[in-house]
Amino acid sequence: MEMADAGNWCEKLREELSFHFLTPEETAELASWLDCRSVAPGEVLWRQGDVCAGVAFIVSGQIEVRQPTSFPDKSVIVALLGPGSFVGEFCLLQESERFVTVASREGAELLVLSRRRFEQLAQDRPRLAVRLMQGMLLTVSRRLGQAYERLAAFF
Amino acid sequence: MEMADAGNWCEKLREELSFHFLTPEETAELASWLDCRSVAPGEVLWRQGDVCAGVAFIVSGQIEVRQPTSFPDKSVIVALLGPGSFVGEFCLLQESERFVTVASREGAELLVLSRRRFEQLAQDRPRLAVRLMQGMLLTVSRRLGQAYERLAAFF
Repeated sequence: MEMADAGNWCEKLREELSFHFLTPEETAELASWLDCRSVAPGEVLWRQGDVCAGVAFIVSGQIEVRQPTSFPDKSVIVALLGPGSFVGEFCLLQESERFVTVASREGAELLVLSRRRFEQLAQDRPRLAVRLMQGMLLTVSRRLGQAYERLAAFF
Repeated sequence: MEMADAGNWCEKLREELSFHFLTPEETAELASWLDCRSVAPGEVLWRQGDVCAGVAFIVSGQIEVRQPTSFPDKSVIVALLGPGSFVGEFCLLQESERFVTVASREGAELLVLSRRRFEQLAQDRPRLAVRLMQGMLLTVSRRLGQAYERLAAFF
């Protein structure tokens, strides 16, 4: 991809960002803080244990969250996330290792917010940062509720 | 409990609040936004399906999070939360029904932040609100990671 095309692609990607908890104006402003990333089919974004640096908002494609099992080389898909969702929120907040392995089977387009950029956002635009955090907390809280339901289904 | 005692008890409870993600100064400021609640041994704080209005920070005692199973009247404890933790974060963000039933076996002391108060906090003190949201998101994200590990352990 040539530079000019890459720039156009990234601008378009930013325009396609959707985030259920923000108004269109807030989403557009958030998008200007994000970096673009294209993921090839089959590509692993990060592995459990990798040092992490930010959250990825999914604009197109799907992302699989894989958790290792007690069998070597066998993992289960614990979540399948699509456009409007995000992955890696833990790393937005704290230097840490990745909990899970994350990959895309069919490829995906992502917008990435690094911890460093987020800290700047929280400093410069705290009200937008609060809204973003609210939306993310709501989403992760809902995922936790679903995980509890699935756990209870084993009993 | 007489009114004067109740006031003293609540003041002391606020001083005992601890929240790992905030500085002592931020914790003290947050505490001033919270209402006190005492939970009797065996008391159910809320049931799955109740309309909800806020998050409860646990100052003393333990809180059980119960998820119904497919057997009538049989639930499993999916989380056990103690001092420094919180429960009900979903309701801070959105008018909703409670996902889970929450109770205390031995009794507990809580500090409660209602959605209405939180909205005021986000308006008046957005930087403190961001820090609070960050801490809560980190905690819920870690709980989700643990739930995924437990799910993977079934395979």
